[in-house]
Amino acid sequence: MSQKRAVVLLSGGLDSTTVLGHALAEGWAAHALSFDYGQRHRLELDRAAEIAAALGAVEHRVVRVDLGSFGASALTDEIPVPKDRVDLGGDIPVTYVPARNTVFLSLALAWAETLNCTDLFVGVNALDYSGYPDCRPEYLAAFETLANLATKLGVEGGPPFRVHAPLLELSKADIVRMAVRLGLDLSRTVSCYDPSNDGVPCGRCDACQLRAKGFAEAGVADPALAGRPSKVGSE
Amino acid sequence: MSQKRAVVLLSGGLDSTTVLGHALAEGWAAHALSFDYGQRHRLELDRAAEIAAALGAVEHRVVRVDLGSFGASALTDEIPVPKDRVDLGGDIPVTYVPARNTVFLSLALAWAETLNCTDLFVGVNALDYSGYPDCRPEYLAAFETLANLATKLGVEGGPPFRVHAPLLELSKADIVRMAVRLGLDLSRTVSCYDPSNDGVPCGRCDACQLRAKGFAEAGVADPALAGRPSKVGSE
Repeated sequence: MSQKRAVVLLSGGLDSTTVLGHALAEGWAAHALSFDYGQRHRLELDRAAEIAAALGAVEHRVVRVDLGSFGASALTDEIPVPKDRVDLGGDIPVTYVPARNTVFLSLALAWAETLNCTDLFVGVNALDYSGYPDCRPEYLAAFETLANLATKLGVEGGPPFRVHAPLLELSKADIVRMAVRLGLDLSRTVSCYDPSNDGVPCGRCDACQLRAKGFAEAGVADPALAGRPSKVGSE
Repeated sequence: MSQKRAVVLLSGGLDSTTVLGHALAEGWAAHALSFDYGQRHRLELDRAAEIAAALGAVEHRVVRVDLGSFGASALTDEIPVPKDRVDLGGDIPVTYVPARNTVFLSLALAWAETLNCTDLFVGVNALDYSGYPDCRPEYLAAFETLANLATKLGVEGGPPFRVHAPLLELSKADIVRMAVRLGLDLSRTVSCYDPSNDGVPCGRCDACQLRAKGFAEAGVADPALAGRPSKVGSE
């Protein structure tokens, strides 16, 4: 009845699916939000819709924002996705999409305000990650500050905006364990930056490597790979 | 040659046109950015393109972002635009678009980063304005902080992101005077929240009232009204 509403960013990957499951388990009425931003791998939008429905989000919305028109990222442009990188914690890679989380959180903020809610959930993670600047705790804190200055809800003295990032300090293995504990079906999640058209992960991009490491360290088989030929090692 | 680049938000109104003129006069290579965000008055996109070309922007880009899908504003939704309001500095009106400047500045930030530039120009104004929270100096300062934490350019130790808001402390009359001093043609600017299809301003919304006050106080005739029947007083 008076269940508290939250906007949950949902890409359809392991992390955001776990965050959605976590928010629902905490009792939030979750409004899931995905973006059609010109990404190369549009499969994730279908998977996000599927996952939102399966987990029990109140609704799922896909908002178009034409980030692809700016180019300059391997996720939206004709730049090849790097494979088999060794030092994943080093330089910011070409899969970085300029200001992506800021654009996404801004749109989440806009929707939250129309829903009259002040809680946002996001699956960013500052431990096993690719070194994107907009995944760090100080970034999220600055966004909260901004949100409370930017909005009608923020200035009217109600509860302040809060960006919940429950995965922030977790390793990928911890995230897999959290998902398992929550009983989430991860078989339809897609993490790969460069999947085949029918959804087979490449196994070699940063996202595939981090995911594989997480499942391995958690001692769990990745259900998304069950019954599928892995492309790892093949070419 | 090594002219410094900046992204200039351009709605096609009096304020953003003056900002573009100001940035160009200061010697910036201006990349003008407008948004197709589901606004009711799409005339402004045509005018923005016209003004960007006339003033000499390096380029003008219109980015689609589906803010209209969230609704909840008279500028994007079926809510009537309020007319003949008396206390324009009071409550936040229904023309407020949730988180609009945050979404727009985020997209400007994304484009700036792909252009390898760290300067953004925006026509917000905290004096003669409608009371929107995202037009205040403390909001802009928070956005600068965020931008420097959010981006590859921001964390790599180059010049910090700066949000230039040259109109921030000006009255509408001051803005008109600045535009006149810069020799800008204001005849194609459109400020009205609810113009007719052929671009005739309603004369009664907040934006028309503030514009009329500015021109009157500056002792300048509004060239956008020249030769057009004013709708003021008629119904």
